[in-house]
Amino acid sequence: MPRPANPETRSRLLKKGGDLVSSRGFNATGVQEITAAAGVPKGSFYNYFDSKEAFAVEVLSEYWDSVVELYGWILTDDRTSPLSRITRYFAGLADFHERRQYAFGCLIGNMALEVTPSSEEVRAKLATIYREWSTSLTDCLREAQVRKELAPGRDASQLAAALIDTFEGAVMRAKVERSRAPFDSFERCVLPCLLA
Amino acid sequence: MPRPANPETRSRLLKKGGDLVSSRGFNATGVQEITAAAGVPKGSFYNYFDSKEAFAVEVLSEYWDSVVELYGWILTDDRTSPLSRITRYFAGLADFHERRQYAFGCLIGNMALEVTPSSEEVRAKLATIYREWSTSLTDCLREAQVRKELAPGRDASQLAAALIDTFEGAVMRAKVERSRAPFDSFERCVLPCLLA
Repeated sequence: MPRPANPETRSRLLKKGGDLVSSRGFNATGVQEITAAAGVPKGSFYNYFDSKEAFAVEVLSEYWDSVVELYGWILTDDRTSPLSRITRYFAGLADFHERRQYAFGCLIGNMALEVTPSSEEVRAKLATIYREWSTSLTDCLREAQVRKELAPGRDASQLAAALIDTFEGAVMRAKVERSRAPFDSFERCVLPCLLA
Repeated sequence: MPRPANPETRSRLLKKGGDLVSSRGFNATGVQEITAAAGVPKGSFYNYFDSKEAFAVEVLSEYWDSVVELYGWILTDDRTSPLSRITRYFAGLADFHERRQYAFGCLIGNMALEVTPSSEEVRAKLATIYREWSTSLTDCLREAQVRKELAPGRDASQLAAALIDTFEGAVMRAKVERSRAPFDSFERCVLPCLLA
């Protein structure tokens, strides 16, 4: 019979395991390494998660929740204009990657490329995150249209998707070049063009 | 003493092993699986490659060479205008991903996110590929400037990098959504904005 689950242990498994997955990749990280990092016996992993894929879904949830908590508010901060919020929002995300020295990339993009082919569970979670991310940007872009900052004919939802794709591509190149240059190029070249 | 290397075996290891790496990811693919797929004994892998990372560098070379061979010519095809070449070039790449049902992603992006943190050898190869890719697009954009298709004040090299980043981000989302929509959005929304 499994021991009763301890929320503190669960949270430590997600935090320590999530760090390993972020730095080494999902496939390269074994359950044993996750439990060792969290200081719990290997077998107890399955008291908390049905599978390594279920664990990945939870790690993604925590990552996405923390991004939303740290930066999501910027997109609805009505003290500034909608388009300037979008610029500030992505600058915030770029700072986030800079603080991590561009080494980890974005867990959403990492999982999208590494885990999607092998896990429908993870793919479905990523599709949900993409939808939420896209919706938060679309709402801000629509507000920009209402306030005449953005032409009414622009497809806000397509534009939101394009912003996400370009940003994720910049995260990828920043990881290879280990520099902020891709984010600078996003800020100086892509954003002004797309939001014109 | 190692057996003499056989170019046909080497090529089969790269082809079959490259397919495995593309579909499952690098870390999830073991040397034994690569040799089994190529039908050679495990030990012979090291007659051909110093390490799994050295193998990854060769797989990336072959992938990039095949992309250049299939689509690179479009960017210098002077029967059409430079900007229409760029549109045709990315449409060709989107077709490439569609034929693979969006399942594999781009090996360059996959490796950038998965292998870069753990292998300086792979990171350096990816940086070289990014530079070559960027240069081929920059040259075409500069030709567009000479032919007055693109404003002379635009930074062609920054624009080239932005095109690559957005396209790679679209490949990523296509893998999650399993649809061409991200490429359509790239073609209809991003390209016209960036090349305006």
